Amino acid sequence: MAQKPSIPKGTRDFNPEQVAKRNYIFSTIKSKFERFGFQPIETPSFENSDTLMGKYGEEGDRLIFKILNSGDYLSKVNDDLYTEKNSNKITTKISEKALRYDLTVPFARYVVQHQNDIEFPFKRYQMQPVWRADRPQKGRFREFYQCDADVVGSDSLWQEVEFVQLYDEVFTALKLEGATIKINNRKILSGIAEVIGASDKLIDFTVALDKLDKIGEEKVKEEMLGKGISEAGIAKLQPLFTLTGDFGSQIASLKSILSTSEEGQKGIEELDFINTAISTLGLKSAKLQLDVTLARGLNYYTGAIFEVSAPEGVAMGSIGGGGRYDDLTGIFGLKNVSGVGISFGLDRIYLVLEELGLFPETITKSTEVIFINFGDNEALFCLKAVKALREAGINAELYPDKITNGKHMKKQMNYANKRNIPFVVLVGEEELKNSQFTLKNMVSGTQDTVDLETMISKIK
Amino acid sequence: MAQKPSIPKGTRDFNPEQVAKRNYIFSTIKSKFERFGFQPIETPSFENSDTLMGKYGEEGDRLIFKILNSGDYLSKVNDDLYTEKNSNKITTKISEKALRYDLTVPFARYVVQHQNDIEFPFKRYQMQPVWRADRPQKGRFREFYQCDADVVGSDSLWQEVEFVQLYDEVFTALKLEGATIKINNRKILSGIAEVIGASDKLIDFTVALDKLDKIGEEKVKEEMLGKGISEAGIAKLQPLFTLTGDFGSQIASLKSILSTSEEGQKGIEELDFINTAISTLGLKSAKLQLDVTLARGLNYYTGAIFEVSAPEGVAMGSIGGGGRYDDLTGIFGLKNVSGVGISFGLDRIYLVLEELGLFPETITKSTEVIFINFGDNEALFCLKAVKALREAGINAELYPDKITNGKHMKKQMNYANKRNIPFVVLVGEEELKNSQFTLKNMVSGTQDTVDLETMISKIK
Repeated sequence: MAQKPSIPKGTRDFNPEQVAKRNYIFSTIKSKFERFGFQPIETPSFENSDTLMGKYGEEGDRLIFKILNSGDYLSKVNDDLYTEKNSNKITTKISEKALRYDLTVPFARYVVQHQNDIEFPFKRYQMQPVWRADRPQKGRFREFYQCDADVVGSDSLWQEVEFVQLYDEVFTALKLEGATIKINNRKILSGIAEVIGASDKLIDFTVALDKLDKIGEEKVKEEMLGKGISEAGIAKLQPLFTLTGDFGSQIASLKSILSTSEEGQKGIEELDFINTAISTLGLKSAKLQLDVTLARGLNYYTGAIFEVSAPEGVAMGSIGGGGRYDDLTGIFGLKNVSGVGISFGLDRIYLVLEELGLFPETITKSTEVIFINFGDNEALFCLKAVKALREAGINAELYPDKITNGKHMKKQMNYANKRNIPFVVLVGEEELKNSQFTLKNMVSGTQDTVDLETMISKIK
Repeated sequence: MAQKPSIPKGTRDFNPEQVAKRNYIFSTIKSKFERFGFQPIETPSFENSDTLMGKYGEEGDRLIFKILNSGDYLSKVNDDLYTEKNSNKITTKISEKALRYDLTVPFARYVVQHQNDIEFPFKRYQMQPVWRADRPQKGRFREFYQCDADVVGSDSLWQEVEFVQLYDEVFTALKLEGATIKINNRKILSGIAEVIGASDKLIDFTVALDKLDKIGEEKVKEEMLGKGISEAGIAKLQPLFTLTGDFGSQIASLKSILSTSEEGQKGIEELDFINTAISTLGLKSAKLQLDVTLARGLNYYTGAIFEVSAPEGVAMGSIGGGGRYDDLTGIFGLKNVSGVGISFGLDRIYLVLEELGLFPETITKSTEVIFINFGDNEALFCLKAVKALREAGINAELYPDKITNGKHMKKQMNYANKRNIPFVVLVGEEELKNSQFTLKNMVSGTQDTVDLETMISKIK
C-alpha cells in the first residue's frame, strides 16, 4: 500500500546543496574553535530523563522529547496510578530517556562523570543536534544544531577576551562583516537593582529592561512600576536609558550610577578589563558594544553576558550568545567549577549568509567531470580514465546507463547540465581507437579532443 | 541534590581523542564518496512512525525507539482501549514519531518525497546516527552511525563495479590493506534453490547456507534437512561446498551447477561482468572474492550482495556490506526505481584501526602551542603573539589563570604535558622587556629565546 511520505512538523530534510552550505558553516566554526585550543566532545542523543528534567524550568520540562520505554512498558505502572489516567504522572513510569534539549546540561554531566580523566581548565566544543517540542515557526525548528564552545575550571577573564576574539574570527572567516558583539555583566544588573532598591525583584527588573529595544522606555517603566518597583527607583534609572558614547564613556557613566554598589563596581571592572584588552588586540570586522539592557538567561549567568547581532540592515534575531556561569556542574555534585561559553546559531547564520549572498560558489560544486556512457567497451575504457582523474584529486563519475541506438545522448548531457557538472567527456568509437577523450567545457561550450594527461591538466 | 551522573546503556560519550579518530574515518569516507560523485543529504532524526513501522519486520518494529507525544497524550486514548492496558495497542495512540532505525528507509522516503527535485540516477551519501533498542553488547550500541552510499534510478552494473572500487579506495586510504570484498548475487541463490527443488524454501535454504563458515558443512546439511529440503537436493549442493580456485574458475563451476536455471545463469553473468571489469581496472589493496554462501538481508536484495571482511588475522565481523535492491521506493508509492548501495561499519572499522595501530598520530594533536600566563601584562603581550600564530594557521592558546607568587608554574607545565601540547612559550619580565619569547620544545626539552617570526617558523 502506497503511503504519501512526509516528515514530522518542525523537522527538515537537507538536500546536497543545503548540506554543503551547512557544512561550510560548521567547518569554519570548527576550524576556529580548534585554532583557539578547543577540543571536540560528543554526547549521546538521549540522556537519562533525570539528567535533563528539572534543569530548564517547567516550560523546558514540557518541551523535552521523551522516549517511550521498550517492551511492555505499561506493566510498570501500578493499577492505582494507571486508573488516574494522568499523563504527567505516568510519564516517568513509561519513559526513562529523553532527547537532548541543549548541549550545556549534557556537557555539565560529562564533566562530572569524567572529571578524573579531564585536565582543567577544559576547553571543549560540541556541535550536535538538539530537540525541542516547541511550536514550529519561521526559523524555529524541533530539531536543530547547536555549536557551543565552553571553558570550565577557570575564572580568568582572559577567557571572555578570547571569546570576543573568537566571535570576531568566525564571523570574519564567514565574510559576515559588521557583526555586533553585545556584552553585559550580571553583576551590573544586580548592582542596578540594588541601587534602585529592587534587589528582591532582580528578575522582574531585568526582564523589563531587556525589552527596551522592542517596546521603548515608557513601556519598560510601566512594566517595572507594575511589578512593584518604586517610582523613585525608576527615576534613578534615567541615566541608563540615555547611555551614549563609546564603550569607555558608557563605563564612566555606569561608574557614577553604580558608585554605591560593590557588586556593580565589580561588574564594571570586569567589563573594563575585557574592553581594554580587546581595544589593544583589535577586532577584524566585528565591534564590541556595551548593552546594559542585555539579560538573556539571567538565572544562569553570573558574570559576562554575550549576544551577537547580525550586521545592520539584516532583520534577524541574535546569531550567537553566551556568558559566564559559576556553578554549572553543581547540579551533578561537582561544586565550584566556573565556566564560560558561547554558542553560534547555525540556522540564523545560514539565513543571513543566504540573504547577503555570502556562500562561496565553490562549496556546492561536487562532481567536476562526468563521462558519457556510449557502451560497455567505451565505459570500461572511461573508467580507467575516471580512476586516473580521481587519483589526481578530481571528483569524477561515469554515467551508469549506456546510450542505446544513440537515443540517450541528450539525456546524459541534460543530466550533466542540471547537476552543474562543469566538464563532460565523450568517448565514442573514434576516441576509443585513438585512446583519446573529447572534453567539453559545459560553461564555455568549447570542446577539444585530447589525451589523458592533457585532460587532467585542463580540468585542474 | 547531587545526582550521580550516568548515560543510558548502549550509548557513549566520546572524548576529544575519540572524536578526532572517528572524524578521521568519517572524513576519509566522505572524501572518497565525493570523489566518486556522491552527494550528501541529511534527514531528520525522527520520522513519522508510519514511515518506519512495518519496514524492518516484527523484530525491527520492536527495536524502534518511539517518542512519546507531548502534552496530555493520554487524552487521545479512548477509555475502552485504555482499560485493556495493552502496551502494544496503546503505543500508536500515544506515540506518533520514532527515531530513525537505519538510513535506507528514510532515504527511500526522501527520494519519493522529493522526486521532482532530484536528477536520476541520484547518487547520495548519508552519514548520520541511527538508534535501535537492541540488547547492548560488545560492539553493539543503541546509538551508532551509519555511513551509506547509494545510487537509485539506474540498473547498470557499472555501479556495482564502482562500489567495489569505492570500498578498495576507502580501505586503502585508511591504510587498512588486505580487506576482502565478498560478493554474491541473489539470483545465484535463487538458482541454486531452484536446482535443488527448494525454491519455496529460499529463505530457510540461504539462512542455513550462510552459516557454513561458522558451523561447517555437516551441520548446514542437517539444518537444511530439518527444514524439509530433500536429501537428493542437498546432494546436488556438494560442489558448492568444495568450490575452489580463483573467481574465474568458481564462476565456471557455478555455470555447470546452475546450467538448468535461467535466473542462476543471469546471476553468473552479472558476477562475471563485475569481476572482469575489476580485473581490468585493478584494486589497490583489497581483493574481490566470490562467496556463494553470502546472503545478508536477502529479503531486501535482488541482485548483487556485498560484504567486507577485515584483513586476515583480525577477529571482527563484517566491516561493510550492501547490495542491489530493485524496488526500495515502492513502499512509498514510487515503483520501478532500482537501487544499489553499500555501507561502512564505523564502529568496527574504528576497532580494527585501533587494533592494528593505523590511526595517524597527527589527528589527535590539537593545540600546538600554549603560552604560560605570568600575569596580566605578560598575558596581553602573549595574546598578541597568540593572534599572530593563529593567523599563521597554528592552533595556539594562553593558559587562562596567572601564576601567583610563582606558585602555579609547575601546574601550567603539567597541563601542557598532559594535553600533549608540543610547544610551551614563556614570557616573563625579561622577555616582555625585549619583546621576545622563550620557546620550549616539550618533546626534546630544548628551549630558545627568539622573536615572533622565528617562533612561528620554529613551530611550523
